[in-house]
Amino acid sequence: MSTETPGDDNARHAAKMARIKAVRDRMMQTKTGEKGLVIVHTGAGKGKSSSGFGMILRAIAHGMPCAVVQFIKGGWDTGERRLLTAHFADLCQFHAMGEGFTWETQDRARDIAAAQAGWDKARALIRDPAIRMVLLDEINIALRYGYLDAAEVLAFLQTEKPPMTHVVLTGRNAHPDLIEAADLVTEMTLVKHPFRSGIKAQPGVEY
Amino acid sequence: MSTETPGDDNARHAAKMARIKAVRDRMMQTKTGEKGLVIVHTGAGKGKSSSGFGMILRAIAHGMPCAVVQFIKGGWDTGERRLLTAHFADLCQFHAMGEGFTWETQDRARDIAAAQAGWDKARALIRDPAIRMVLLDEINIALRYGYLDAAEVLAFLQTEKPPMTHVVLTGRNAHPDLIEAADLVTEMTLVKHPFRSGIKAQPGVEY
Repeated sequence: MSTETPGDDNARHAAKMARIKAVRDRMMQTKTGEKGLVIVHTGAGKGKSSSGFGMILRAIAHGMPCAVVQFIKGGWDTGERRLLTAHFADLCQFHAMGEGFTWETQDRARDIAAAQAGWDKARALIRDPAIRMVLLDEINIALRYGYLDAAEVLAFLQTEKPPMTHVVLTGRNAHPDLIEAADLVTEMTLVKHPFRSGIKAQPGVEY
Repeated sequence: MSTETPGDDNARHAAKMARIKAVRDRMMQTKTGEKGLVIVHTGAGKGKSSSGFGMILRAIAHGMPCAVVQFIKGGWDTGERRLLTAHFADLCQFHAMGEGFTWETQDRARDIAAAQAGWDKARALIRDPAIRMVLLDEINIALRYGYLDAAEVLAFLQTEKPPMTHVVLTGRNAHPDLIEAADLVTEMTLVKHPFRSGIKAQPGVEY
């Protein structure tokens, strides 16, 4: 492809982009608020946890104290756990409170106890006004199975979350009331997944 | 909510989860392949770049050399740039090749030159077999505007990408041929965004 564009085209492009910029600048001037957000990543596609992890690392980069509570993953070694605990323990607390997937533990009472312990930890972290972002990884799974009470979690977020604290909740099948109450919701939609072609979970990609 | 569950329920739960685990274990045994993946994050929702960034940090955690080329973002300071260059420059190269959004530069010829320079850099990084993951952040924008030729990019990925190298391509409106050729595609679907409520871009969340 050529990098040469006739001067006329360039002039038209510049004029069009100047108009877009003017509209955009006016719009962005109305976006002046700052607020601690309730952020939900849900859907069957990939990227829910890794995007939450990316936001935690952005927060760390900006010097914002933050924390991660993992509700399902617990026993196994993940890249996120290794990186956060090895390099950023001063800015980011990491708590793996899960016991594994429900079909691994095969013990509903233990799953419920683990979820409740995770939520107790999460409440203490969210209440701490020094912590600016809390990632509740896979909490939607615990809510969906009824290991945690959705109404209780929502009431806590609405009444006890400090105004400037961001809370990120991930996991498929997010509760409808949580989606309703959240400020920012993204559904990661599965378009194509390599498991279908017999490819296993790989480091860097899945964990 | 109570953490007490009648013993009968627990036994039924355990039996059901044991069946799920057996099915799942059989399925996972068929997933034995390893392969460098072409991964696409697209859609209008949030999480495309932050999830790519999360994968890069997982790769770093596993000691896998990796690289980032940013095709649109360039001039401004982001958390991802700051964190990668300050802490992980030994494992991860970071190249911000963009000049900003098209409505900021207002110069199509310069945008095309920047995109081509980014693609030249990307090709060299992907060809290097020591590099295990390359994130091409916002390349879909450059492809959509015709700053890069989609057929050329695809042909390169299909013929010159080393078999074990993962390449992650982000940005909305991914080219249909790229989606067709990719191994893993996620569409980040916008459900709710705080810009609508007058909230501005915030550190940790957007950058």
